[in-house]
Amino acid sequence: MRATVMHGPRDVRFEEVPDPKILKPTDAIIKLAATCICGSDLWPYRGLQSNDGPAHMGHEYCGVVVEVGREVRTIRPGQFVVGSFCISDNTCPHCTYGFQSSCIQGEFMSGAQAPYARVPLADGTLVATAEMPSADLIAHLLATSDVLGTGWYAADAAGVREGSTVVVVGDGAVGLMGVLAAREMGAERIIAMSRHEPRQKLALAFGATDIVAQRGAEGVERIKELTRGVGADSVLECVGTQESMSQAMECTRPGGSIGYVGVPHGVTFDGQAMFFQQRRMLGGPAPVRRFLPDLMNRVLTGKIEPGKVFDQTLPLDQVAEGYRAMDERRAIKTMLAV
Amino acid sequence: MRATVMHGPRDVRFEEVPDPKILKPTDAIIKLAATCICGSDLWPYRGLQSNDGPAHMGHEYCGVVVEVGREVRTIRPGQFVVGSFCISDNTCPHCTYGFQSSCIQGEFMSGAQAPYARVPLADGTLVATAEMPSADLIAHLLATSDVLGTGWYAADAAGVREGSTVVVVGDGAVGLMGVLAAREMGAERIIAMSRHEPRQKLALAFGATDIVAQRGAEGVERIKELTRGVGADSVLECVGTQESMSQAMECTRPGGSIGYVGVPHGVTFDGQAMFFQQRRMLGGPAPVRRFLPDLMNRVLTGKIEPGKVFDQTLPLDQVAEGYRAMDERRAIKTMLAV
Repeated sequence: MRATVMHGPRDVRFEEVPDPKILKPTDAIIKLAATCICGSDLWPYRGLQSNDGPAHMGHEYCGVVVEVGREVRTIRPGQFVVGSFCISDNTCPHCTYGFQSSCIQGEFMSGAQAPYARVPLADGTLVATAEMPSADLIAHLLATSDVLGTGWYAADAAGVREGSTVVVVGDGAVGLMGVLAAREMGAERIIAMSRHEPRQKLALAFGATDIVAQRGAEGVERIKELTRGVGADSVLECVGTQESMSQAMECTRPGGSIGYVGVPHGVTFDGQAMFFQQRRMLGGPAPVRRFLPDLMNRVLTGKIEPGKVFDQTLPLDQVAEGYRAMDERRAIKTMLAV
Repeated sequence: MRATVMHGPRDVRFEEVPDPKILKPTDAIIKLAATCICGSDLWPYRGLQSNDGPAHMGHEYCGVVVEVGREVRTIRPGQFVVGSFCISDNTCPHCTYGFQSSCIQGEFMSGAQAPYARVPLADGTLVATAEMPSADLIAHLLATSDVLGTGWYAADAAGVREGSTVVVVGDGAVGLMGVLAAREMGAERIIAMSRHEPRQKLALAFGATDIVAQRGAEGVERIKELTRGVGADSVLECVGTQESMSQAMECTRPGGSIGYVGVPHGVTFDGQAMFFQQRRMLGGPAPVRRFLPDLMNRVLTGKIEPGKVFDQTLPLDQVAEGYRAMDERRAIKTMLAV
């Protein structure tokens, strides 16, 4: 089959690779219904993360099971499934504690920007729908696999609840999903920090109550104005730079919480400063599997439409253009039709 | 009066100073029933924290109100009171959110290693008992002012609850109070990391179920053994060095929580490492005022005896010897009889 391989910075090729096959008895092979490009794929694309030779790209996925290994018990060929970008057995102590992204057998999914993909630990990783979903739900279901799940975790880690005042730092796809998550969790006020009009509009559509276009010290000042000098109860950090992290810290009230899901690049914290700022902090790769049944249910019942975050759809063989469009911020998030 | 003044590292003098007086209409003057030396007093004593000239020492206190300013409404002369080392109005948004240590009008208490002391924002800061407590309760009540309140906050910030597995890093007075707090909160397992036999004994008396004498990598390995490879749900970091903080991180399970109350000195965190470790973290100066009524009630009803943490009592005029004893680890915590 032909699939997506990154050979180096800005060198994404759609080329012939071996078909995926069952390597372990707990694997499944799925036929992708759709896949997409992640903001985190841009780190190696931009040369900001080391690349050990050609990499099979893609970790967001949904589709139909075509084959399972002999030890797979609950997942069956013919089922429509969604899985997390974090592979997990869903039975180890970390999984049962709700942190499937730290599964003892855990690994990161790869190779999903392709017509077919191998999913390890199929029983633990995949969640099947009762019926074959209609075509108009595919984008929304695909979104639950990572981008929504990660935004949801940011809100969960930041302790968003009924009545919370929330700030979302970062207007990328994850930040926008963080807005949606905060709304679903009952936040009263959701302030999205965004300078880009199309993203501002999407943030408002997903439930933002306020937009702050300023950044840095000016942005923090504006947040303080909007919160009567107090700061937000919960801040979702969805970027991962020193600037965005500092902005998140300063927008949070003392004793408030920060959920940070932008993988930090070049970020350091001074322990004493962090101590006196007194914010509750939790980050890390999102344990999407914890949320997946609930998120899929919200999609299947029409409660949420997270797939609206895809503002570009390309055929899979044009994946390189998708990377370019996201890199140049011409697209927020690109879906790839298989 | 004569009181405690630190002129520089290892230069603590008990010398003549002006009597405290009402400076603002919200102040109270108290006659100390007892006071004590804090582990944090040792930072400047050891020259590890800059000292801007002579400092009136002491921030843990309880005693009888002798005078109040004209705007003080609820506190009256003759009442026995305990206050937090963090002065707070207890009405601002940070206070009502439970973070009185970030009070908008907040300041740190000082000058309590003395026969009399001025307490600013008396109505917000002080909690009065209904009756004059008996002499045998004074040490226990004094402990609630900071050392117990701080250990309690560490356990609270680390999310200790019924059935938790808890590790306490640091066998100083705060760590020992963290053990007591974890027990009161219903922890099932409380592992105290301590190499010193008298402190190990005290930890067991306060409710520790296990003692780990190893440190560093060996200590972490032992914790992993004791927790079936998983790590602890909640870790109380009560030291504030890079080593102790790393130890705390590594003893915590993914998704578990760290409450850190040792003021970090020379500690830095790498953002990416912190992200992938995925621990919930909350530190800062303890909002003791939030817990004070409950803690005082537990003391007054004989439920807890935190004053047992004082293993040395000296007359106030021997305060310099108290500093020496704590510096040389001859005493865990020194109470000063006024």
